[in-house]
Amino acid sequence: MPTTITAFETHDIRFPTSQQLDGSDAMNPDPDYSAAYVVLKTDSESLNGFGMTFTIGRGNELCVAGIRPLARLLVGVTVESLMAEPVTLYRKLTGDSQLRWVGPEKGVIHLAAAAVINAVWDLWARIHGKPVWQVVCEMSPEQFVQCVDFRYLSDAITPTQAIELMSRVQADKAERIATVTEQGYPSYTTSAGWLGYSDEALKKKCEGLRERGWSHFKIKVGRDLDDDIRRCRVMRQEMGDDAFMMIDANQVWDVPQAIKWIGQLAEFRPWFVEEPTSPDDIFGHAAIAQAVSPIRVATGEMCHNRVMFKQFLQSGGMQVCQVDSCRIGGVNEVLAVLLLAARYKVPVCPHAGGVGLCEYVQHLSVIDYVCVSAEMEGRITEYSDHLHEHMVTPVNMQNGRYIPPTDAGYSVEFTQDTLNQFTYSPS
Amino acid sequence: MPTTITAFETHDIRFPTSQQLDGSDAMNPDPDYSAAYVVLKTDSESLNGFGMTFTIGRGNELCVAGIRPLARLLVGVTVESLMAEPVTLYRKLTGDSQLRWVGPEKGVIHLAAAAVINAVWDLWARIHGKPVWQVVCEMSPEQFVQCVDFRYLSDAITPTQAIELMSRVQADKAERIATVTEQGYPSYTTSAGWLGYSDEALKKKCEGLRERGWSHFKIKVGRDLDDDIRRCRVMRQEMGDDAFMMIDANQVWDVPQAIKWIGQLAEFRPWFVEEPTSPDDIFGHAAIAQAVSPIRVATGEMCHNRVMFKQFLQSGGMQVCQVDSCRIGGVNEVLAVLLLAARYKVPVCPHAGGVGLCEYVQHLSVIDYVCVSAEMEGRITEYSDHLHEHMVTPVNMQNGRYIPPTDAGYSVEFTQDTLNQFTYSPS
Repeated sequence: MPTTITAFETHDIRFPTSQQLDGSDAMNPDPDYSAAYVVLKTDSESLNGFGMTFTIGRGNELCVAGIRPLARLLVGVTVESLMAEPVTLYRKLTGDSQLRWVGPEKGVIHLAAAAVINAVWDLWARIHGKPVWQVVCEMSPEQFVQCVDFRYLSDAITPTQAIELMSRVQADKAERIATVTEQGYPSYTTSAGWLGYSDEALKKKCEGLRERGWSHFKIKVGRDLDDDIRRCRVMRQEMGDDAFMMIDANQVWDVPQAIKWIGQLAEFRPWFVEEPTSPDDIFGHAAIAQAVSPIRVATGEMCHNRVMFKQFLQSGGMQVCQVDSCRIGGVNEVLAVLLLAARYKVPVCPHAGGVGLCEYVQHLSVIDYVCVSAEMEGRITEYSDHLHEHMVTPVNMQNGRYIPPTDAGYSVEFTQDTLNQFTYSPS
Repeated sequence: MPTTITAFETHDIRFPTSQQLDGSDAMNPDPDYSAAYVVLKTDSESLNGFGMTFTIGRGNELCVAGIRPLARLLVGVTVESLMAEPVTLYRKLTGDSQLRWVGPEKGVIHLAAAAVINAVWDLWARIHGKPVWQVVCEMSPEQFVQCVDFRYLSDAITPTQAIELMSRVQADKAERIATVTEQGYPSYTTSAGWLGYSDEALKKKCEGLRERGWSHFKIKVGRDLDDDIRRCRVMRQEMGDDAFMMIDANQVWDVPQAIKWIGQLAEFRPWFVEEPTSPDDIFGHAAIAQAVSPIRVATGEMCHNRVMFKQFLQSGGMQVCQVDSCRIGGVNEVLAVLLLAARYKVPVCPHAGGVGLCEYVQHLSVIDYVCVSAEMEGRITEYSDHLHEHMVTPVNMQNGRYIPPTDAGYSVEFTQDTLNQFTYSPS
């Protein structure tokens, strides 16, 4: 029996995180972690699909408004017809010629598309009674490429090349599934490094995290150089010499300024520097990467579609690929990015934090490991300690590692209590 | 007496242009030309500011929704405080840290910012009783650079370099104003070349336009190669050998496909090929430009901010700069693009058509000619014959040239009749 999408609900959910300065950085001093949330209803009463896109407060209503015309395209459609060749889902939600104009494939309309596309993947996985990562991992390379829109990618990778790439690691898939299920996938955390925290808070948070098993710590920089030097020193001391420290500037520098500033922090041996300049500046990132080597340049959380990823990877300006789960067009477009990253031999370390993002990306890292890169070494998925209590099936962290979820779906269903308490109403 | 912005109105205006196939191309088969329109009210009853952003139908409501939180930032603010150093206006409307997340500086939120920023320029010009082009042309180079946000541009051009660049042509400004006021600014038109038109309609439209003085014609291509060859032949015959023909693919090709297809149309000697592939693909445009030379590659109408323009210009992938008046952040960011284009010696030929765009861009081309490039040769501004009757001060075309407007403001005020008749209400 096919499942038909019959209706949908949207919710504007906002958490007042700015009150604690959780999530504060040089570009985003006071984020209110928010979700533009969609529930797809079906003709089976017990079966819904849940998806969301992440924002930091004001503007969340625009993503909710963007979800509506997109979700409407799915009403009356069967999930099976969308997922027979899953690129159909992506094309349907990004190809409406009028809606495309206000992107195309970027900004509000693409953030909204991600929520809806992810909701269909959630629904599809629930129909199969499996988590999304498992549904994808059980695909053959041929089925995997049928999820991807190769438009604008053929100068970098073709479906045939992608199949070849995945076929090379096809034989050991079951083994890798067993490994990651048992050991989990490594993570790093920014929970200690927000710009709004005092040195004392920073120290205490580092200590707590080290005790719980983390060895990779990220710290926000870019507001004041002297502060940065002091805070990096505190963190390096707390962490010890062997742990990995990463710095994140959240786009505040121009290119020449970035090169200078990063030079001043080199003594703390950052493993990578994240978002040193405009998230659109491919040439800028490439120039910085050349200048600050061996410190690597990481970016991707605001890289807005596969065409931008293609160029960042081609240019050498993205040496760590921090793909986001809902900035680009949902699972389908993330799979395209995993292929591109493997093509250019760049490790994928997805962006997370906020709300719902950790729940999403745990699936993506497992997919990358099992189906595409076949590597866990030198790869870490972001993790942040906040707001997991709002999810029906929150992440399960063990010793600083994500344990792959076993519940069916894509893990971003909010609890009813959360909807009751945190649904935003404009004052 | 300073003027305070006290309130604002938004309007969702849509014209059912898809019924005539005006505006049809390979990517956009059925556009309904639309405007997300804002009216800024002031404490002076007779003084309002009018701004709009252009869309092609569905999704216009998102831009209207995006205008609201941005226009709200201006309520209670004096126009003079915003325009004392006009970059303040740009930063205020693109710098809200939470709203920035859903861009940044791209898509719906940036289209909305353009409407609001342009409305303030309109208001500012009305206060001075002058058209916007004149207000800018009367600025010194030092005042001009104070309009521009140089963030992320300093590796390409600094304020000092921009001042130098404009100072070189400062002496003959009055002369150029006299020239353009008298002769007008050259235009080209796509009114004949829409993909939905029959060969007969194409012929007739060409004839009419030639009689009215045009010598540059653009034709849409990219849906079917045999059709394209036939239609280009019809147009070239109608136009004669001396007229300039341009082709526009509206982003439908992958890079290798673009190179092949354009090769097949080379016999019709297109002056440029517009949007051969994804509007985000800088490297792709550069590769195409290299392969199809001497045909030039034009792009820019969907180039979403100054950082992208910077790279397109640096790469050689943008040989004709088709900046849009409301895709990027209004007058302020357009001025940045004019400077970048001059820096890389690329002619600016603004995108227009749709609704309101011709009214906007006539100002921008005059500014480019008078203050920045000092060149009219080899530069043409797009023009389309539709929907001017809805504007209070429509463009004045003489012999295929834009005659610079003399009315105060930025020329995009809609008539009351139009608001009454074409305000959209969702069915």
